[in-house]
Amino acid sequence: MIASAVLDLVGIFVFAISGALLGVRKRLDVVGMAVLAEITALGGGILRDLVIGAVPPAAFTDIGYVVVPLIAAGIAFFWHPHVTRLMPAVLVFDAAGLGLFAASGTLKALTFGLGPVHAMIVGVCTAVGGGILRDVLAGEVPNVLYDRQLYILPALLSAVAVTIAFRLGAYGFPLTLGAALLGFALRLAAMRYGWRAPIARGLDKT
Amino acid sequence: MIASAVLDLVGIFVFAISGALLGVRKRLDVVGMAVLAEITALGGGILRDLVIGAVPPAAFTDIGYVVVPLIAAGIAFFWHPHVTRLMPAVLVFDAAGLGLFAASGTLKALTFGLGPVHAMIVGVCTAVGGGILRDVLAGEVPNVLYDRQLYILPALLSAVAVTIAFRLGAYGFPLTLGAALLGFALRLAAMRYGWRAPIARGLDKT
Amino acid sequence: MIASAVLDLVGIFVFAISGALLGVRKRLDVVGMAVLAEITALGGGILRDLVIGAVPPAAFTDIGYVVVPLIAAGIAFFWHPHVTRLMPAVLVFDAAGLGLFAASGTLKALTFGLGPVHAMIVGVCTAVGGGILRDVLAGEVPNVLYDRQLYILPALLSAVAVTIAFRLGAYGFPLTLGAALLGFALRLAAMRYGWRAPIARGLDKT
Repeated sequence: MIASAVLDLVGIFVFAISGALLGVRKRLDVVGMAVLAEITALGGGILRDLVIGAVPPAAFTDIGYVVVPLIAAGIAFFWHPHVTRLMPAVLVFDAAGLGLFAASGTLKALTFGLGPVHAMIVGVCTAVGGGILRDVLAGEVPNVLYDRQLYILPALLSAVAVTIAFRLGAYGFPLTLGAALLGFALRLAAMRYGWRAPIARGLDKT
Repeated sequence: MIASAVLDLVGIFVFAISGALLGVRKRLDVVGMAVLAEITALGGGILRDLVIGAVPPAAFTDIGYVVVPLIAAGIAFFWHPHVTRLMPAVLVFDAAGLGLFAASGTLKALTFGLGPVHAMIVGVCTAVGGGILRDVLAGEVPNVLYDRQLYILPALLSAVAVTIAFRLGAYGFPLTLGAALLGFALRLAAMRYGWRAPIARGLDKT
Repeated sequence: MIASAVLDLVGIFVFAISGALLGVRKRLDVVGMAVLAEITALGGGILRDLVIGAVPPAAFTDIGYVVVPLIAAGIAFFWHPHVTRLMPAVLVFDAAGLGLFAASGTLKALTFGLGPVHAMIVGVCTAVGGGILRDVLAGEVPNVLYDRQLYILPALLSAVAVTIAFRLGAYGFPLTLGAALLGFALRLAAMRYGWRAPIARGLDKT
């Protein structure tokens, strides 16, 4: 349980960093940075819990979920040039958070009785929902819709793996972690080799 | 029941097409197109179900709701120039979906115990919510706020008709369909004759 | 109770006016103005009620909540130049609504059993959520993220005051009003003296 909680907080921290850094780029003040960090980190999980009926959402029952994004915003506020320089490392952690949130979100939806397809959708929303809210609030078209470096597909892979295991009667922290690693690996490979999803037939590639 | 389910899926398909085509126009990749198609088609119903407390939302309990937008995204991906050429026909189906979702959404809210005025609002949200989410995600001011070709008003007409019938003790599929047709007819007439809602006094018409 | 309900409706009216005026500026038609007024006025409370599990939200059970924004939209439609001229007064009422919604939202979350930190977050969301939705729908980066004239911090002050009083066993309308006044005063002072939150270290001030 402790390993699971620590991984969860690491994922939240990394997502919050990405929100806070976008806040710096958009020249938001420190309060706006904190808001963007919180929404990026917690938005996906809140959407998940609203949809499956787990209210109040987990983010509203655990103090750590709220404090960690504030710390991330503080770090970005003081040391954003260093954080930006570390961006390649941040992206690796972001890929880890992506797989982890997709896997744990799918499992939570399955245990709330959703069917396999819908649980997978909820899992993907958990992983990418916060980033979508971040970009909409910052006035940008959500990054993940330009999935051409693959972002949603790795989340989907983790969600599928959890669902198959669950249907076979197997679940637990090691399995969730394994499913998360699958998505993590696909995302890393896509970044490394520049894999992209296609755009509609007949449009020029850009 | 079968007629009702088929109409529902037709409405979802048409809304999904509009989402996928906007994805093409915004040069999203195929995954982004699928996401936009799903959100356009299902967003209004999900909002409705969250507000009236019907969780998990209907979109998360029926596999057809998820598959139909994927088919729409696939069609737009391969044959978007043809679909765009068929746009006038798509707009007619879109008007049908508008009336239908407004009518069925209002009825669902009424059966969940909401008062008449609030049920009408929920019905209108069901009809236009997905389109609003679509435009916000694509970085545009929602089309329906520029209601000058009338879009929200036909939805409201369908919602009012269902509510009056319900208060008189009458409901059922034929009545819902009749109410949907009212909104459908108003929307078609507005498109045909260029009816527009006024903008604030003293602003130049554009 | 009557004083509380009247204050609530005043807050809703003022928030609705800000939504309707943004609609005028964006050249929305009268229907779009009404939609923007409703969402600005009611969005924060709806978010609050979804998160704490109070469905259907209060906005969907009381007719006054729906009618007041329509009146505001009508006033803005006919007399927006006069309303714009009264903007300094509108901003004072807006500051009052801000403190009031933060205080009453926090109290509602506390009575639904949320912990203190999370109740404060819900209270702040109640106060600023509608304005965020307003700006996102109108295609702008939410005003409150540029908190440099202080907007979220006064809401937070009211939320903290309510929470401290509640933990000491004290609540009731006078206390809520007192907490609302604290946030109101801070917001007025920030407007008067141009107080601003800092932006990230090393960025040029603008």
